[in-house]
Amino acid sequence: MLSLLSYETVGENVSPEHPQVVPITIFVAVLCLCLVIGHLLEENRWVNESITAIFIGGLTGILILVLRKGQSSHLLRFSEELFFIYLLPPIIFNAGFQVKKKQFFQNFITIMLFGIVGVFISTVIISLGSWWLFPKLGFLGLAPRDYLAIGTIFSSTDTVCTLQVLHQDETPLLYSIVFGEGVVNDATSVVLFNAVQKMDVSKINSQTILSVIGDFLYLFSTSTALGIGVGLLTSLVLKTLYFGKHSSIRELAMMVLMAYLSYMLAELLELSGILTVFFCGIIMSHYSWHNVTESSRITARHVSHQEEHVFAMLSFVAETFIFLYVGMDAFDIEKWKITKLSLGTSLGIYSSIVFLILVGRAVFVFPLSAFSNFMNRRKTSPLTFKQQTVIWWAGLMRGAVSIALAFKQFTYSGVTLDPINATMITNTIIVVLFTTLVFGFLTKPLVNYLITHRMRNQNNRGGGSGGEQPRSPKDDVVLPLLSFDESASANMQIARESFSLLMDRPVYTIHHYWRRFDNAYMRPIFGGPRHSRSEC
Amino acid sequence: MLSLLSYETVGENVSPEHPQVVPITIFVAVLCLCLVIGHLLEENRWVNESITAIFIGGLTGILILVLRKGQSSHLLRFSEELFFIYLLPPIIFNAGFQVKKKQFFQNFITIMLFGIVGVFISTVIISLGSWWLFPKLGFLGLAPRDYLAIGTIFSSTDTVCTLQVLHQDETPLLYSIVFGEGVVNDATSVVLFNAVQKMDVSKINSQTILSVIGDFLYLFSTSTALGIGVGLLTSLVLKTLYFGKHSSIRELAMMVLMAYLSYMLAELLELSGILTVFFCGIIMSHYSWHNVTESSRITARHVSHQEEHVFAMLSFVAETFIFLYVGMDAFDIEKWKITKLSLGTSLGIYSSIVFLILVGRAVFVFPLSAFSNFMNRRKTSPLTFKQQTVIWWAGLMRGAVSIALAFKQFTYSGVTLDPINATMITNTIIVVLFTTLVFGFLTKPLVNYLITHRMRNQNNRGGGSGGEQPRSPKDDVVLPLLSFDESASANMQIARESFSLLMDRPVYTIHHYWRRFDNAYMRPIFGGPRHSRSEC
Repeated sequence: MLSLLSYETVGENVSPEHPQVVPITIFVAVLCLCLVIGHLLEENRWVNESITAIFIGGLTGILILVLRKGQSSHLLRFSEELFFIYLLPPIIFNAGFQVKKKQFFQNFITIMLFGIVGVFISTVIISLGSWWLFPKLGFLGLAPRDYLAIGTIFSSTDTVCTLQVLHQDETPLLYSIVFGEGVVNDATSVVLFNAVQKMDVSKINSQTILSVIGDFLYLFSTSTALGIGVGLLTSLVLKTLYFGKHSSIRELAMMVLMAYLSYMLAELLELSGILTVFFCGIIMSHYSWHNVTESSRITARHVSHQEEHVFAMLSFVAETFIFLYVGMDAFDIEKWKITKLSLGTSLGIYSSIVFLILVGRAVFVFPLSAFSNFMNRRKTSPLTFKQQTVIWWAGLMRGAVSIALAFKQFTYSGVTLDPINATMITNTIIVVLFTTLVFGFLTKPLVNYLITHRMRNQNNRGGGSGGEQPRSPKDDVVLPLLSFDESASANMQIARESFSLLMDRPVYTIHHYWRRFDNAYMRPIFGGPRHSRSEC
Repeated sequence: MLSLLSYETVGENVSPEHPQVVPITIFVAVLCLCLVIGHLLEENRWVNESITAIFIGGLTGILILVLRKGQSSHLLRFSEELFFIYLLPPIIFNAGFQVKKKQFFQNFITIMLFGIVGVFISTVIISLGSWWLFPKLGFLGLAPRDYLAIGTIFSSTDTVCTLQVLHQDETPLLYSIVFGEGVVNDATSVVLFNAVQKMDVSKINSQTILSVIGDFLYLFSTSTALGIGVGLLTSLVLKTLYFGKHSSIRELAMMVLMAYLSYMLAELLELSGILTVFFCGIIMSHYSWHNVTESSRITARHVSHQEEHVFAMLSFVAETFIFLYVGMDAFDIEKWKITKLSLGTSLGIYSSIVFLILVGRAVFVFPLSAFSNFMNRRKTSPLTFKQQTVIWWAGLMRGAVSIALAFKQFTYSGVTLDPINATMITNTIIVVLFTTLVFGFLTKPLVNYLITHRMRNQNNRGGGSGGEQPRSPKDDVVLPLLSFDESASANMQIARESFSLLMDRPVYTIHHYWRRFDNAYMRPIFGGPRHSRSEC
């Protein structure tokens, strides 16, 4: 896996035939260390696992730098291929597999507003802002395409820090919005980055912008369709082949391989692998694992746990690896030597980027929240200002996607000798380090302050059914009927009620029809328990 | 992972920025196909999964050859690094994790006889035989060192085919010997191969041979010690850090990473990674997974299943991948073009190697079995001739280790332009294909014929306690006392009986003392249930 990175051995004499052995060994050892220290610091108020990994990575970088007498700090060069081909797919697949589908789809519109419209707004603001500010600070030489790329690079958020603090059971609405936005944001920023790279920058007009938006919608829908298709195919294969039998090793392997295949296929067709593998994960957790061992309830719970743990483990290792790498890369003095800017200019650029990130996110979070509240105005609990602040804060951290996109834009397979490109790489690393460390450090206290105990209690009551939408008495009449056979008059009654419901709350009603369709047609074909009312 | 192999894209226009995407996608798709077809053919009398994978690999190779109009058949070049760094560790770790420790250690001496002494004998016979036969067949140009390498290359067995046919519950003695020999054989042949490469071939005398044996024993003991050390350290860390808590994702990641670390450390210290990771697996399954969730019995069983499945899945995918690769590589016409031998000579070489394999194995299996029977002459059920034949047959197949060693000896990172080296590579591939396909094809019927129903019943009775050693009445008196507190007189009684037992059956008694030591000292420190009498 690490071989994608061009390696540099520490000692020259050790195992000359396998030059990767030394860096891999060190990396694995440091990963183990991260696991142990991350666990020991679990109860700590300020520190989370990303910060631990970055710190340990930084210390390792310094150590290597000292051992090599200041030559270079990194064992492995970063390669965006390593990231996009091996590390990102398990992370996103796990996100799809673990997502609480009911809450995700109930807040679908809000999540899409933040995850798609938000990225567009943020990209425009950061692009224009840096276009205006950088030359004033004395940093010249970037092409218009580079500014657009900078906009997308710094619009991709990393919500891991915040998700470690929020609790799914205590604040289901907030958790589901922050989590959902994080995944959609990853996909949007990568797709937008690619769209911007293909764009003819010399003549930007309304038509170009429309075509970017059109491209984006096409990519979004086809990627989603591909993910759902592969997920359904896997469910169907698992259901038809293995009924009654229990060879969960093959099934587990099949699920992992098919999910990876969907990602690679999407990349091959130049779609968004992130979206594809995310929806593939959703479909697989909805149908496939129920197929794996349908006959036995206990075993089914076994297997579900097992698979969740496998995927969570892969995702966990990949994430730790990335942060470790970022920490190690911070002391890559080669890049620092290439940049020719003064300390003042550099600090100016860092702070202007951080400022633009803060503004670019504020500009869309609060208006879009207001819009979302207006759309769902019949709900009793809108997004409060405190919750909006948490959502705004949750998206301030920048992470591995930013780094990977920056390497893609400004280096040629991880290497650059151009001062301007090297500056942009170091800028990205500094911004990622700063936001993860400083903002990440403040997240736990801030969230604890904003989401007080009183509010948590309120959420608990409101959010028990998911999404903090207290059920109307009407629902309680309608819903129990869904899972049983119904008489014609009851059907009429439901139809009438459903119609008024549709006028009332469109998303909720779509969800309700989906559940009926799912029980009647999808589950018999693709598998899964028939009578799950609490879970979607 | 695949990037270790230098890739060749199918189309030139597809995703030029990620040239590995196409081959990886095809490989993953073909792997999925193998899973499905392997499952469909599961009940088949003649075919097993290795054969399926080789066939599908071959078909894919032909397809690519046709699509490329005869240029080259392979997507990826074989690299022994890919094999030794990424594919072998999970396979061997899984073997260690799944091994029935009690039976393994009860048959320890027999397994070591076959796995170590056997490889030495077989290497000598195949080396001398090919030295004598190859020039007579008109194949010249190999150095003495090459002949020694050929000896070790064709002494490494692949017992996967036979293990798929034997059943652990029906024939525990046979299963444990074939399984144990397979692992020890892998380690021995790799260690011996490395020892031979370092040897000064110009002056072979008794001293050189003694030093090879000395080297071997040193490597064997240090590798085992390292594996046990890392396994115990992991158990200790898991036990001290996580008491009472259930964060099995971290623990799973920790076990996987530590096991991999032990392998890489062994490689770095130029020890045998195979042995290290095998013993690491044994120790981890003995102590670590009991630590993971000590409080809850049900959860513990969950987790054990889960981890076993994870490791089994990794191992399964790696094995399928290797056979798939071997099948695909068979149609690598570039190598075929380089070899300049006539068809007759080639066939002569193939058949002489297969003949030497048959002889080289017969020469040690039957005498060593007789020796083993003599050593255990007080046992009521010695190894019958039929069982010896199954053991002989089980080790006739050659597999991935042979291929990897051949590539290591005869190519420079997967490429060779020398006709003699290319011939040796094609020889190895043909022998692996022939033994896996033809011998593998015959394994199921042969084993079914030799191990008749009557015999299986007999084994069932004899082997219920493991290793087909029917308990003497004495054991039944002694053993129940072990797990309880004993009075002094009972201790004296046990000591006297144990002493006569030690004279009687050394291995069994060592095992018995080990169990007491384990319960009294090891388990309290490293974890695990205290009162397991049936499992060791």
